[in-house]
Amino acid sequence: MSEGALVVSLGDPAGVGPELIAAAWAAREAAMLPPFVVAGGAEVLAAAAQSRGLSVPIREVFHPAEALECFEFVLPALAGADGDYTPGAPSRAGAELALASLTEATELTRNGDCWGLVTAPIAKSLLAEVGFAHPGQTEFVAAACGIAAEDAVMMLAGPTLRTVPLTVHVALAAVPGLVTTDLIVRKGRIVAQALARDFGIERPRLAIAALNPHAGEDGRMGHEDAAVVAPAIAALQAEGINATGPHPADALFTPRARATYDAALCMYHDQALVPLKALDFDEGVNVTLGLPIVRTSPDHGTAFGIAGQNVADPGATIAAIRMAGEIAARRAGVDLG
Amino acid sequence: MSEGALVVSLGDPAGVGPELIAAAWAAREAAMLPPFVVAGGAEVLAAAAQSRGLSVPIREVFHPAEALECFEFVLPALAGADGDYTPGAPSRAGAELALASLTEATELTRNGDCWGLVTAPIAKSLLAEVGFAHPGQTEFVAAACGIAAEDAVMMLAGPTLRTVPLTVHVALAAVPGLVTTDLIVRKGRIVAQALARDFGIERPRLAIAALNPHAGEDGRMGHEDAAVVAPAIAALQAEGINATGPHPADALFTPRARATYDAALCMYHDQALVPLKALDFDEGVNVTLGLPIVRTSPDHGTAFGIAGQNVADPGATIAAIRMAGEIAARRAGVDLG
Repeated sequence: MSEGALVVSLGDPAGVGPELIAAAWAAREAAMLPPFVVAGGAEVLAAAAQSRGLSVPIREVFHPAEALECFEFVLPALAGADGDYTPGAPSRAGAELALASLTEATELTRNGDCWGLVTAPIAKSLLAEVGFAHPGQTEFVAAACGIAAEDAVMMLAGPTLRTVPLTVHVALAAVPGLVTTDLIVRKGRIVAQALARDFGIERPRLAIAALNPHAGEDGRMGHEDAAVVAPAIAALQAEGINATGPHPADALFTPRARATYDAALCMYHDQALVPLKALDFDEGVNVTLGLPIVRTSPDHGTAFGIAGQNVADPGATIAAIRMAGEIAARRAGVDLG
Repeated sequence: MSEGALVVSLGDPAGVGPELIAAAWAAREAAMLPPFVVAGGAEVLAAAAQSRGLSVPIREVFHPAEALECFEFVLPALAGADGDYTPGAPSRAGAELALASLTEATELTRNGDCWGLVTAPIAKSLLAEVGFAHPGQTEFVAAACGIAAEDAVMMLAGPTLRTVPLTVHVALAAVPGLVTTDLIVRKGRIVAQALARDFGIERPRLAIAALNPHAGEDGRMGHEDAAVVAPAIAALQAEGINATGPHPADALFTPRARATYDAALCMYHDQALVPLKALDFDEGVNVTLGLPIVRTSPDHGTAFGIAGQNVADPGATIAAIRMAGEIAARRAGVDLG
């Protein structure tokens, strides 16, 4: 596969997605971004750029390949769904546009016309109203690729830390019952493979967090770390994977500890996302591991409350586009120099 | 009460406690530390200072008041239990020394001979073998002061963050059942009072973390945030306390979020300790709120694995001593300049 353009979905047109895409394009040289095309929304992007006081010429194109030629001079957007939306005022029509853009962007990546997919934030509850039957974009993309939801693994990656939540959008009370040896092995394997294939880490070091405080302290604070987590680590090690733990979570994110692993596999949502957002908030990228296609996303939501006000930080969008380009190039065997 | 000396317990003599006390004394001028006396262990301190290559003259004293006179020139240690111990090799005799030092230091603070108590790290399992019947030093000190264990509230305080775990050393599976409206109100009230009295924050802002990811997202990920946490916040507000939440935990520790509160009340151990140690590891102080006496502690353990090797960082011990001095001065009405 020769070098291609990435495709960026528009996200909810009333959210911060479009303005951050425009800001990322404006920063393309300093940020050394690879070429990308936006799936639809030329009008939305023009209005969003204006709201940030950015001079961003938009060009409608009809095929992603055209983006490679013009990206240096204009922000290319595929001709398609579009319209006029008010920042901060989500609507059913906006959700329909977001879904159309996501669907097209996913298909263009799946069929090889684009090198990788970057998704801008959507509003899940609104999307559900217009027929979106998935808990989130990750599950939508996994289903489009024919991958089981539990094999599409969410990793949060920032400049100082990479974390993976084993369980994600469930009540804390449900977590202990969902943490199984099989699930840890299954996801740990996907993470180790992805760190090698997508991040170029030859022998990835995987730190596995304990479920309980102090890793259960010999069973005084829960039995799961000895009974469930430790056997999974042994099984991963038996496969030749450099896995360690179970590590007490509070000791796992100090500067010294972070230097000892390439990714931390955490047992639940907040255990993974609290340290990532504390340390790398404006540059956190959500990468989906285990897919046949490359997919990243900025690690934040639509932020309707600040949309159109020129205050949202484009750091995570820029980082997501850059990371998608790096992973795509690595998969294609392109020298990253 | 006129200005007094702080008392520092020795901690386990085979751990990093004694060498960090010696290092703190050596840094007393640059760190602007208030005068302190160590409860026993003159020989242990001398050996520990030597292991770090520090010139620390030790003087045995017989009353804490003597420390005020000589602290500038020598490290004062109360005549008492002592001995010769090997760093990194915990023993029953060492645990007995640690307990004797803790007991004396607590009593000296309780009876007013010392201004505040700083406890160095102990090994709980060893201490239990020599008759210590408490889960930790906090509960020991609370009992000595006649305070119920749940009213002695642990706060972790660093340069960028203060967090309080509502539940502490219990299995994660037990947490949802232990989080009650009453407990949140009871501890929230103690935290707000302590921020005012001990930290000089006139109208403290208390951020209360959600138990579930995304604060339960309208019940889709757990009902406790709406049913249990929110009513506690309303009750605290009704008492005139500036409490907010329930805040999704992953959004609560970003730099912008941290600027909006003075302390975060978290629902469980790792939710409070992960961000604190990620951000403030070498300067984290454990302060016990709600006691009649002042008590702080460095937020780390005995670290037997690195004791005697001159690698342990004295930052947390220095910060704990400084904070105890500040709180004691504030309670005594001394102008901190």
